[in-house]
Amino acid sequence: MAAQLRVGILGATGTVGQRLVAMLEGHPQLVVTAVAASDRSQGKTYGEACVWRLPGDIPSALRALQVRSPEPPLDCDIVLSSLPADMAGPVEAQFAAAGYPVISNSSSHRMDDDVPLLIPEVNAGHLAMIAGRPGRGFIVTNPNCSTIMIALALAPLQARFGVEAVAVTTMQAISGAGYPGVASLDITDNVVPYIASEEEKIERETLKILGRVEGGGARVRPAEFPMSAQCHRVPVVDGHMAAIRVQLGRKAEPGELREAFTSFRGVPQELGLQTAPLCPILVRDEPDRPQPRLDRDAGGGMSVTVGRIARDRVLSHRFVALSHNTIRGAAGAAILNAELLLAEGYLRLRNVQ
Amino acid sequence: MAAQLRVGILGATGTVGQRLVAMLEGHPQLVVTAVAASDRSQGKTYGEACVWRLPGDIPSALRALQVRSPEPPLDCDIVLSSLPADMAGPVEAQFAAAGYPVISNSSSHRMDDDVPLLIPEVNAGHLAMIAGRPGRGFIVTNPNCSTIMIALALAPLQARFGVEAVAVTTMQAISGAGYPGVASLDITDNVVPYIASEEEKIERETLKILGRVEGGGARVRPAEFPMSAQCHRVPVVDGHMAAIRVQLGRKAEPGELREAFTSFRGVPQELGLQTAPLCPILVRDEPDRPQPRLDRDAGGGMSVTVGRIARDRVLSHRFVALSHNTIRGAAGAAILNAELLLAEGYLRLRNVQ
Amino acid sequence: MAAQLRVGILGATGTVGQRLVAMLEGHPQLVVTAVAASDRSQGKTYGEACVWRLPGDIPSALRALQVRSPEPPLDCDIVLSSLPADMAGPVEAQFAAAGYPVISNSSSHRMDDDVPLLIPEVNAGHLAMIAGRPGRGFIVTNPNCSTIMIALALAPLQARFGVEAVAVTTMQAISGAGYPGVASLDITDNVVPYIASEEEKIERETLKILGRVEGGGARVRPAEFPMSAQCHRVPVVDGHMAAIRVQLGRKAEPGELREAFTSFRGVPQELGLQTAPLCPILVRDEPDRPQPRLDRDAGGGMSVTVGRIARDRVLSHRFVALSHNTIRGAAGAAILNAELLLAEGYLRLRNVQ
Amino acid sequence: MAAQLRVGILGATGTVGQRLVAMLEGHPQLVVTAVAASDRSQGKTYGEACVWRLPGDIPSALRALQVRSPEPPLDCDIVLSSLPADMAGPVEAQFAAAGYPVISNSSSHRMDDDVPLLIPEVNAGHLAMIAGRPGRGFIVTNPNCSTIMIALALAPLQARFGVEAVAVTTMQAISGAGYPGVASLDITDNVVPYIASEEEKIERETLKILGRVEGGGARVRPAEFPMSAQCHRVPVVDGHMAAIRVQLGRKAEPGELREAFTSFRGVPQELGLQTAPLCPILVRDEPDRPQPRLDRDAGGGMSVTVGRIARDRVLSHRFVALSHNTIRGAAGAAILNAELLLAEGYLRLRNVQ
Repeated sequence: MAAQLRVGILGATGTVGQRLVAMLEGHPQLVVTAVAASDRSQGKTYGEACVWRLPGDIPSALRALQVRSPEPPLDCDIVLSSLPADMAGPVEAQFAAAGYPVISNSSSHRMDDDVPLLIPEVNAGHLAMIAGRPGRGFIVTNPNCSTIMIALALAPLQARFGVEAVAVTTMQAISGAGYPGVASLDITDNVVPYIASEEEKIERETLKILGRVEGGGARVRPAEFPMSAQCHRVPVVDGHMAAIRVQLGRKAEPGELREAFTSFRGVPQELGLQTAPLCPILVRDEPDRPQPRLDRDAGGGMSVTVGRIARDRVLSHRFVALSHNTIRGAAGAAILNAELLLAEGYLRLRNVQ
Repeated sequence: MAAQLRVGILGATGTVGQRLVAMLEGHPQLVVTAVAASDRSQGKTYGEACVWRLPGDIPSALRALQVRSPEPPLDCDIVLSSLPADMAGPVEAQFAAAGYPVISNSSSHRMDDDVPLLIPEVNAGHLAMIAGRPGRGFIVTNPNCSTIMIALALAPLQARFGVEAVAVTTMQAISGAGYPGVASLDITDNVVPYIASEEEKIERETLKILGRVEGGGARVRPAEFPMSAQCHRVPVVDGHMAAIRVQLGRKAEPGELREAFTSFRGVPQELGLQTAPLCPILVRDEPDRPQPRLDRDAGGGMSVTVGRIARDRVLSHRFVALSHNTIRGAAGAAILNAELLLAEGYLRLRNVQ
Repeated sequence: MAAQLRVGILGATGTVGQRLVAMLEGHPQLVVTAVAASDRSQGKTYGEACVWRLPGDIPSALRALQVRSPEPPLDCDIVLSSLPADMAGPVEAQFAAAGYPVISNSSSHRMDDDVPLLIPEVNAGHLAMIAGRPGRGFIVTNPNCSTIMIALALAPLQARFGVEAVAVTTMQAISGAGYPGVASLDITDNVVPYIASEEEKIERETLKILGRVEGGGARVRPAEFPMSAQCHRVPVVDGHMAAIRVQLGRKAEPGELREAFTSFRGVPQELGLQTAPLCPILVRDEPDRPQPRLDRDAGGGMSVTVGRIARDRVLSHRFVALSHNTIRGAAGAAILNAELLLAEGYLRLRNVQ
Repeated sequence: MAAQLRVGILGATGTVGQRLVAMLEGHPQLVVTAVAASDRSQGKTYGEACVWRLPGDIPSALRALQVRSPEPPLDCDIVLSSLPADMAGPVEAQFAAAGYPVISNSSSHRMDDDVPLLIPEVNAGHLAMIAGRPGRGFIVTNPNCSTIMIALALAPLQARFGVEAVAVTTMQAISGAGYPGVASLDITDNVVPYIASEEEKIERETLKILGRVEGGGARVRPAEFPMSAQCHRVPVVDGHMAAIRVQLGRKAEPGELREAFTSFRGVPQELGLQTAPLCPILVRDEPDRPQPRLDRDAGGGMSVTVGRIARDRVLSHRFVALSHNTIRGAAGAAILNAELLLAEGYLRLRNVQ
């Protein structure tokens, strides 16, 4: 076992924090050495503070770790943050200022000019935005849980055909709202056509991710196609689904889209990153797939599954995409970002100022 | 109590058949005198044949009625049909040929040239197609359970602004598939992005409903805008939801759409038909409405509830619509059609040939 | 319309409070004149403060009512309380001390020596406990939402056969936990075998209800049979179910239990109280009933439905009971209590001290 | 890799059949060489015939296998049967007569005098019933999906304290009914207090399993305590739960039951069988466990999880048990039986007569 990077998790007791902890158990390069949370948990051990809501048990190595306050210094080389949005803004900035690389799943800094909004398969080149800062503090974010699968599915279409307009309608799982999150009285035998700020995030973040780095990494010029999202919460535990209509830049047979999806590979696949799935996008040809319960765990929860590829009468094509919202859409996204940063040389032992 | 029309129900033991029976209990003009079903039910009483799946009990007046074979003659003046699609085609034609007015919820004849596809609030004028046939047999159909709410919501927009393109994404309740219908293993903790033939029906039927009668009633010229539907089954008992994007023919503030929806009235409201809701379309201004469980019973299940009216970045506007799929979308639709036909003089005592 | 009693509702914005408001709309004797709540709602109108979670709309008459602090004086003759348990204790005592009759759904005072725990069909005679206090303040409570249906179902068995032991296993709806109550992540695709304090409440309250008044109303001597409850939360919106095993005091054919259930009537039926169902207990003979979704609204939500009556190999008999937990089990229970008190002369214009 | 036994699966396209196929993928000793099904599947390949309803894909090795008719001869050394009950009786007898060891999950032969009803941890000694038949055909069955966890949980109590009466109330998952099985309209927002023949099976099978072999393996003398089961279907995908009350033969602290559960081991653990869990029974001490979604996969789906151990007021003790109904309760049970038979020398190359 070679050198390991010591990881601190901010928001470690929450839904995504627990996924981070579970996914990092046994990770060859990243080892959790600190857990922090924003609430009454501080002072308790992680085992006491954490009401574990994933199948199985809390990793025994972390059970006795003291829960810390989310502020530097923290006993770690990098921090992974899944803090609630209202706290993440200042806290993450504080850690970056103190010299920590901050890899965040929170929305606060995603649209900042000097913060990459990163999906390693899609826009690894956006790391140019922090190229001048190895060994210093910075923030790298992953997108919103729905945006990730949408942008991932659009990436090969943009590359091969061009994208001129996108209209997305999502059906999102309850785990996306954290815990306690959605009240059971609101979602049992029901659908809620509203998730606060979600439509705006998807519309905005997708364009940044699919945009181009300019000025030698100074900024990202967002993609410019019209982008529309309508979002719904459905009574599903895990797995966000999106019905996507797209206007492509040139004529294409549905089979060409299929081929673009299945042949798509990115930097994580080339580098063989630990958490990278073999295929970022899987295509199912059955008429009734993808489905959350059957497809959310594809590729260890890191693959996006696409199905129902067809022509559309309003835009040029349509299809349905699905991915695991707390793995590829959150915890796995952050970990893959960390693995990319490590492979690309951005994560050395930190220099605290 | 004045004269009553005697009603035979084809497919009386099914999900929609049961709704028809329940809604006609105590109806002032329509009284059920015959029940027919396609299966092993024949020879049994309705009480024996019917596994009642609605809250409450089978109307006691019908409990002892013999279940008949679905073929003429039947002891009634008109038939309401909710037969399965594979049987409805020939059986309904046979009843019409035998002189019965047939009011059908089945899909078999909806697109026939001489069959009105009727939503009384939207296209009562389409009855011109059967104008030459009072006192004789004919078929009048209501649309697919999702189409009804979509066409109803589009009608006031078409009238006031013009409609140039429509993209609909539905989230449909399990009761729409009848009984036993959707297996619980397929839909618990899940969404299924496929309902056989549903997308085609919505795309095709909407254009016929919003089309114009030509040639003095000889035919309907369908509306010609591009129409796209993506359909999903969600774990909801009753209440279909549709996320609708529409390109209007002229600029309009969201408030103008709101006003067009809330002020919309049709022939059933003018005539005060028994089953007509006061408002065909209700608008909810809360950001998280409409919702199936809270809004499906609005207007006795006969109103469509609309919410989240806003501009859209790809088409010009968007909103969410919801209605009760087995009431406004099926049984109530057929009954309202019967009431309109009665009020317009199409249903007299039949002359059997 | 004769004289009306003016009602104040404590906890009016909660789940049970909303049910009280909805059920009292149009009540011939009880008119809501004051609403109080424990939280940030005070100062707002009821329409502003209340996120209405029942189908349909807030009764328009109450929309503009100011939400008050839950303390006397309040502009009403009696108070109906559905306060959370932690507040109900002192607040209800304060109202009673100030001369208000308090009819409470909260658990705080149910086991108090001078407080009747009342199900009008079962133990109307327990009102002897407050016989000396007409025109003065007092507290009358209804039982826990599961206890009500259990005690109601046991009452005719106790009367006819004697009861020597009872073992109950409940499957309870999410609405029993109020709002936000049960997190959707805890109950979707899941069952939770724990509801805080519920087993103790059912075991204790049932024995008090089925006990006898002694000493001229001075106290209740609880029934003395062993009583066991195991409680579970299931993903059902409304309707608590209980699998009940009972050891009767004498041999009995299942048909005799059936007859005891169906023939059972109580004081509310004799007096024709407004909210009393025709039959407190309905029996369904189908092998798969009762079911929450099909039977919870029986008798307007005020009837208990019983089915699957059979011999048992461990105790002598078994059956399954079901009732609507927020109607018969909470709001309807309190209203029926108020109606009984009114009919029995306990509710006159109050004398504030 | 040493010698492998060639396995034929009867009912291979069904819910349990698919689980068998999935669990045997990569099994070191058991390799699937034949699949048979009762229906229109014959003649197709397994990949064509099987609508795969488990996460992931059909094992590629089986995709091209021809589906056979369920009758001998079949290209295999033993058959694992998950045929529907109406077919299993004669078909399994036919295979046994033809010399095949038949390891069945079906209910048809469970109560036969010469058929062991086997849970390897509980009653491995019952194999004495077939001791005279190595190398010849025989039938070995596993119990009903609920019975397995009930009998497993009772086994250590019977051994240590004696068992004098048991009352079980189950809440069972939809996958227990196969596919299409439970209609979604029957179980969404609902509980069904009826599963055909289930209560009788649990009451009868538990006593056989906990009975003693007599007459040198000639017969099983069932346990004789009163046993009562009430069964319910709940909207849960996988994982049967049972609320269990038990009268023990002597006084015992709850902690003694806990210790009996956690220390329980059986022959599969001693022999280190491939599919045996480390601990047959796990105890969770949190007040709200076990839960189906969190605990069903414990021990790879082969452990029973027990919680809420307490005294009871009617019988002496109570607790809640949970296990995965299609793994420990069906496919895993049959495979563990096969492994035990193999380890004990009952499965040699068969001699077809």
